[in-house]
Amino acid sequence: MSIVVIYGSTRQEGNTERLTGRVIEGLDVEEIYLRDFNIQPIDDYRHADGGFPDVDDDYDQLVERMMKHDTFIFATPIYWYSMTGTMKNFIDRWSQTMRDTNFPGFKEQLGTKKAYVVAVGGDKPQVKGLPLIQQFSYIFDFMSISFEGYAIGKASRPGDILKDTSAFLAAAILNEKLKESQ
Amino acid sequence: MSIVVIYGSTRQEGNTERLTGRVIEGLDVEEIYLRDFNIQPIDDYRHADGGFPDVDDDYDQLVERMMKHDTFIFATPIYWYSMTGTMKNFIDRWSQTMRDTNFPGFKEQLGTKKAYVVAVGGDKPQVKGLPLIQQFSYIFDFMSISFEGYAIGKASRPGDILKDTSAFLAAAILNEKLKESQ
Amino acid sequence: MSIVVIYGSTRQEGNTERLTGRVIEGLDVEEIYLRDFNIQPIDDYRHADGGFPDVDDDYDQLVERMMKHDTFIFATPIYWYSMTGTMKNFIDRWSQTMRDTNFPGFKEQLGTKKAYVVAVGGDKPQVKGLPLIQQFSYIFDFMSISFEGYAIGKASRPGDILKDTSAFLAAAILNEKLKESQ
Amino acid sequence: MSIVVIYGSTRQEGNTERLTGRVIEGLDVEEIYLRDFNIQPIDDYRHADGGFPDVDDDYDQLVERMMKHDTFIFATPIYWYSMTGTMKNFIDRWSQTMRDTNFPGFKEQLGTKKAYVVAVGGDKPQVKGLPLIQQFSYIFDFMSISFEGYAIGKASRPGDILKDTSAFLAAAILNEKLKESQ
Repeated sequence: MSIVVIYGSTRQEGNTERLTGRVIEGLDVEEIYLRDFNIQPIDDYRHADGGFPDVDDDYDQLVERMMKHDTFIFATPIYWYSMTGTMKNFIDRWSQTMRDTNFPGFKEQLGTKKAYVVAVGGDKPQVKGLPLIQQFSYIFDFMSISFEGYAIGKASRPGDILKDTSAFLAAAILNEKLKESQ
Repeated sequence: MSIVVIYGSTRQEGNTERLTGRVIEGLDVEEIYLRDFNIQPIDDYRHADGGFPDVDDDYDQLVERMMKHDTFIFATPIYWYSMTGTMKNFIDRWSQTMRDTNFPGFKEQLGTKKAYVVAVGGDKPQVKGLPLIQQFSYIFDFMSISFEGYAIGKASRPGDILKDTSAFLAAAILNEKLKESQ
Repeated sequence: MSIVVIYGSTRQEGNTERLTGRVIEGLDVEEIYLRDFNIQPIDDYRHADGGFPDVDDDYDQLVERMMKHDTFIFATPIYWYSMTGTMKNFIDRWSQTMRDTNFPGFKEQLGTKKAYVVAVGGDKPQVKGLPLIQQFSYIFDFMSISFEGYAIGKASRPGDILKDTSAFLAAAILNEKLKESQ
Repeated sequence: MSIVVIYGSTRQEGNTERLTGRVIEGLDVEEIYLRDFNIQPIDDYRHADGGFPDVDDDYDQLVERMMKHDTFIFATPIYWYSMTGTMKNFIDRWSQTMRDTNFPGFKEQLGTKKAYVVAVGGDKPQVKGLPLIQQFSYIFDFMSISFEGYAIGKASRPGDILKDTSAFLAAAILNEKLKESQ
């Protein structure tokens, strides 16, 4: 098993990254910080004659890095009750990749992957973060990705997450599960 | 009453715009097509000493245009079971505006607004679009915006929405409601 | 096409029944008022050696009546953000019927049925009723029942529903759909 | 702090009770097994002139026992993606108690209570059980009960829950939290 963490946060070493740190403790993982890259929003050419034009940004190389692994961890702060726009733009572009001849079998390959979600929010995330979990579940179902588990943490100010011992225990559970499947 | 439509779609004259056309039929509205503007993802400086630095993009002028109206219509295709990344980036930035001295009373003013949602998706949107509606509901609750109604349509290929007569009737209901409150 | 309406309400001619009246206007339907029957809660013998013992109540005859039709309308007031306990007890018993040799092929036959939901609640039902819709969607998915549509109305006191013109338009949409498929 | 567990399961010593056993380990609690009592579905007389008639069943004594405690644990198997009909009937009757002069201040008193949920289901409960969590959240919000946490377990056959180590860790987290607040 080989793991990639895809971070949607826009702040360095924030609460989401700390909680995710517990999830991947002792594991060898590749980490992609989406904020460090130029990812354009999708421009919907699904139904245009020539299909999608090439986009001059970093998206393709990130997908290549992601697809080398068989287990994905999506780690995102909860902004306005969903993933960050930064992560959403990355996932929106999957619609393009599904039609990109440079990525043949993209959907089929995703169907062999496993995924975890780590999400941290400030406003009752254990309840108000559930639509986000449902959205991820639908995304994974569409791609036949196996949804292996999630951890939700509560935090607003830097370091807050350290007080959410429940979240760290939930993260430890995911850590155990990841270790077992390695 | 004065209405602004905020479009999250990335394709011109797509299904979402057509369905929204029924919602605003016969009404005088301002229309903002987010895709025509440069909107940077939020960079989270909420907890930084100097606060948020200025961002050189079109976001601020769009908020100014939006805030002149008292009724907002958020019209978005459902990409991956949520609003488009383009629209999400716009809303994520509200966290910055809430702390921007150029927009004093931003949250308080939002608390006087009314909002509608129009969403169009291809994969069982009447059910799989509900987390998106819940998410909008949480956003509006946080800002004390009054959530007045929504219409969900089903469409994938260009023009598909014309076959969803139920969606157009739902749009007509919103149109009636908007006309009554004018 | 032949239609059965299953009412979960406990009050006669209440808001749910009035709204459902619009859904079935001009249609020939069988109506089952669950409140008029003795339906025991399920007693979980799924894993007991002898299986489920016979239950001396009206449940079986109601299932027989329901299964004669190919389109089901579940009409329920929203009590505490879900269907009434009366309706829940009826559906819970399906787990027994799936293992009842008197109902061979129960699940397979359900897989050929279509279903609609009409739900009326007093506390922001257009948003707070959505978990109920998701729950029905999961039930129908499990049984491979086709979920054709739903109407949500807002009402608390008797007759309140008459003021919810949007709900009646939504009901009219379902009425059209039912008529077309006849 | 004083704790009451309200069990909605219909089978003795089932998976839900086992998981709940971990939640209350080492704690002094009162346990109410709803299946052992006669609880009639609510008959909606909210708007009738004389109000609700008395009901000759065990409901009132159960509410009295529940209200002596300040922390409630609702433990239910997930039947058809929600609480059991047995538990739903119990909660539906709260609408009657809110108007019962024998229980003055019922809603106000509930507003001082804390609540936990333990739910066990067989079909992807970590995702398909989320509407149930949202429903409980709305119930608690309506009554101003503080929703302190939940644990979701996966199990179908007797004893299955023992294999869900994640659920037992989640239960242990709730156990810690309950002990701390004692």
